[in-house]
Amino acid sequence: MAIAMHWSCLSLFLPNAPSYSSSPSGGASLPGTANSFVSFSGLRATSASSSSHGFFAKKLWSLEKTRILPVIECLVKSLEPTTHTTKVQRNANLAKLQGGYLFPEIARRRNAHIQKYPDAKIISLGIGDTTEPIPGLITLAMEARAHGLSTLEGYSGYGAEQGEKAMRVALAETFYGGMDIKDNEIFVSDGAKCDIARLQLVFGPDVSIAVQDPSYPAYVDSSVMMGQTGAFRKDVQQYSKIQYMRCSHENDFFPDLSSVPRTDIIFFCSPNNPTGSAATREQLKELVAFATINGSIIVYDSAYAIYMSDNNPRSIYEIPGAREVAIETGSFSKYAGFTGVRLGWTVVPEELLFSDGFPVRNDFNRVMCTCFNGASNIAQAGGLACLSPEGLKAMNKMVSFYKENTAILVDTFTSLGFKTFGGRNAPYVWVQFPGRDSWDVFGEILEKSHIVTTPGSGFGPGGEGFIRASAFGHRENILEATSRLRKLYL
Amino acid sequence: MAIAMHWSCLSLFLPNAPSYSSSPSGGASLPGTANSFVSFSGLRATSASSSSHGFFAKKLWSLEKTRILPVIECLVKSLEPTTHTTKVQRNANLAKLQGGYLFPEIARRRNAHIQKYPDAKIISLGIGDTTEPIPGLITLAMEARAHGLSTLEGYSGYGAEQGEKAMRVALAETFYGGMDIKDNEIFVSDGAKCDIARLQLVFGPDVSIAVQDPSYPAYVDSSVMMGQTGAFRKDVQQYSKIQYMRCSHENDFFPDLSSVPRTDIIFFCSPNNPTGSAATREQLKELVAFATINGSIIVYDSAYAIYMSDNNPRSIYEIPGAREVAIETGSFSKYAGFTGVRLGWTVVPEELLFSDGFPVRNDFNRVMCTCFNGASNIAQAGGLACLSPEGLKAMNKMVSFYKENTAILVDTFTSLGFKTFGGRNAPYVWVQFPGRDSWDVFGEILEKSHIVTTPGSGFGPGGEGFIRASAFGHRENILEATSRLRKLYL
Repeated sequence: MAIAMHWSCLSLFLPNAPSYSSSPSGGASLPGTANSFVSFSGLRATSASSSSHGFFAKKLWSLEKTRILPVIECLVKSLEPTTHTTKVQRNANLAKLQGGYLFPEIARRRNAHIQKYPDAKIISLGIGDTTEPIPGLITLAMEARAHGLSTLEGYSGYGAEQGEKAMRVALAETFYGGMDIKDNEIFVSDGAKCDIARLQLVFGPDVSIAVQDPSYPAYVDSSVMMGQTGAFRKDVQQYSKIQYMRCSHENDFFPDLSSVPRTDIIFFCSPNNPTGSAATREQLKELVAFATINGSIIVYDSAYAIYMSDNNPRSIYEIPGAREVAIETGSFSKYAGFTGVRLGWTVVPEELLFSDGFPVRNDFNRVMCTCFNGASNIAQAGGLACLSPEGLKAMNKMVSFYKENTAILVDTFTSLGFKTFGGRNAPYVWVQFPGRDSWDVFGEILEKSHIVTTPGSGFGPGGEGFIRASAFGHRENILEATSRLRKLYL
Repeated sequence: MAIAMHWSCLSLFLPNAPSYSSSPSGGASLPGTANSFVSFSGLRATSASSSSHGFFAKKLWSLEKTRILPVIECLVKSLEPTTHTTKVQRNANLAKLQGGYLFPEIARRRNAHIQKYPDAKIISLGIGDTTEPIPGLITLAMEARAHGLSTLEGYSGYGAEQGEKAMRVALAETFYGGMDIKDNEIFVSDGAKCDIARLQLVFGPDVSIAVQDPSYPAYVDSSVMMGQTGAFRKDVQQYSKIQYMRCSHENDFFPDLSSVPRTDIIFFCSPNNPTGSAATREQLKELVAFATINGSIIVYDSAYAIYMSDNNPRSIYEIPGAREVAIETGSFSKYAGFTGVRLGWTVVPEELLFSDGFPVRNDFNRVMCTCFNGASNIAQAGGLACLSPEGLKAMNKMVSFYKENTAILVDTFTSLGFKTFGGRNAPYVWVQFPGRDSWDVFGEILEKSHIVTTPGSGFGPGGEGFIRASAFGHRENILEATSRLRKLYL
């Protein structure tokens, strides 16, 4: 109410003042980015005759007098007792964040496009959102579990915060066979992104982090939120205190570790989102050695491991010594279309110790118990079905389908003369637009072809000049997208 | 590996040294509480001949020489290169936490009891875990949604991080009709406990908090984790920097606000867990006025609102002015037996503003988008069914059943001469054991009657001398429990 009042006041004297509105995704958003918000507490607390309010006050008095009266009335109105501001200071860490989280921002632009072209058939190669139905044997298991909850025998209440034992055992056997990962080192969760935030709670505000550049934005954003970083530096498009490890085609998308300063935490995603590259065994050995020597902890995001075509490791624990330096997180989202069902996991080996010898696993367990209450039991029933022999077959079939999509996209962009990367080991194609602003390219493809992509710079400054095309889509949509892209770029 | 080595070394010369084992719930735990862990890095890095290791070194050399050799061998072994400790400092905030989270600790003691009495039929009046099957019309909706996910028409991927629109609308209409709460002010989540942790991420490390004493432990624990508190003070059993607002039968379980210093955040739970009391309209008016004058934010936990028998407010938004000072969180866990399904919500009104005028809602939205990915779509289908007219009827029937259990428990304890509180407006009975240590009472009831309760001091120092009996249970178990309690205390 208070804010709405102020914006409506402003719109009286600022011809192009934005109006307060809810974002299409339903969350509150102020015009522009979240951080473009301007505090009006000064304006509110004093009379309009004060000249101490810089821009707004000057603007105010430079307007014709006929428009002043309603402004003053409005300001007086805003002084009514219904206007209340708490005395709680906004969290300075959240205030550091630049704009909204990447994917809701893309959804916002997509929705704006729909408003502009209500009849356009938009195709999304943007957010990596699965489109193919979940194999029936997996949904059947969830139906059975849901039905069971209505019976005396099948009902269960709170599950273990760490996940159901059977699920942990199955994950250990299926994905970590021969890697000496025990079921009690695996924590089942509602997704890898959520686990990354919980890991940040474990690490706390005082750790230093490194990320691949470009990288999945949740690492950086959760780090900023926890207060691990300094301010955003517009000149280099980086937060201070974060080490951005440049990964480009020039270094085979693997950072030059000899030039990376030591950090406490190293976020590393392979197969990589967004570049689609995958680290080789030799590269991962180098990474583990680097972490071991530096006493760092690797957070290894393997959410796309199942998409691996080449003979690269699918888990960091294939590398000797990794148990003592690495956490690994995984997800059913892109394995079985569980993006909406929500199921993931995180491995924290017993041997991973803080500098005082305290097991990291114990603190992660504490955070899981205090800030989480276990993944949905119905989702876990689905996960268990995924890990049955038939489930694995069905998942692999789905993954093969998406990989065909990826090949189609690679062919299309290549035939149009674009240099592409990735696509073999991940459902993402990284397409180069040399010298161009990636948001501009995003806008161009959306405007002219009604196709949503993801601008590379959304993943960090190292993504500038690229867009990411996601291979998740019905085949006819992928084919239609390629045909539109041919029209646009041939 | 490294740690196991050290414990086994120790057990050679410390007769009662604990052995390293996993907790029954599967998470890692070291002997005693998480914080009783002793760092052995010094011992590890130096030879056994050094006398600088205080207690352990002295103990070592005071033992007979025949036992020394294997110890030295063991220490040498532990210097092998497989022993690795990272250089990442443990988060000092997590290190402040006393023991494990309350309910896993109770589960641990329950499991130890099972080990001791494998044939005992344990009855749980402990953790407030629902026992009655979910009404069929609600599970049917979840089955239908799960099945739909296997079809082209019914499949959906990522949902909005804030929850499905229909769900938000239904929550607004059902629980906030006439209170001017809009659907876009409601965020659907995987539960109230998880939302409390996310709210703490919004507030950050620099806020001050107040809690009812006793209170649900997640408020305090998440506050400690975020670094909002000082160390734990053993003498008063409180964390410094937290205001503990004593709520006892002497003040009608409502704090004397005239003696409570201003804090940024006030956690307030009504109907209350654990005391079972509910604040009256007048009391809540006082609370809202207190927050308004102080510029504080109330986090109002209404997870038990549906259990209200008296004519007290079910939502803080029934109080004029609350929209500008209060967040409210709710849950389907105790409404529809969703403790394992996971579904809750949090309301953050537009008018709730930080001191600089920035909407709290925008920051909560940012945290939900960055650290969460929406509640499971299947759970949301269940939630929507809960809010249908038939669903509401079914939920109320279930709640009535648990309320009958509560009445049985109240009658039993009263007839045994105990003073009880709560029970009318919440599924919890707060039973007084004057002058007794509540963990002792917990142990006595478990040992002699095989009944799990919750010790009052687990909810804060104000809970000392009480136990909480939860009314969630099959009727025959509740009756059996009362018969055992009669045997124990008559």
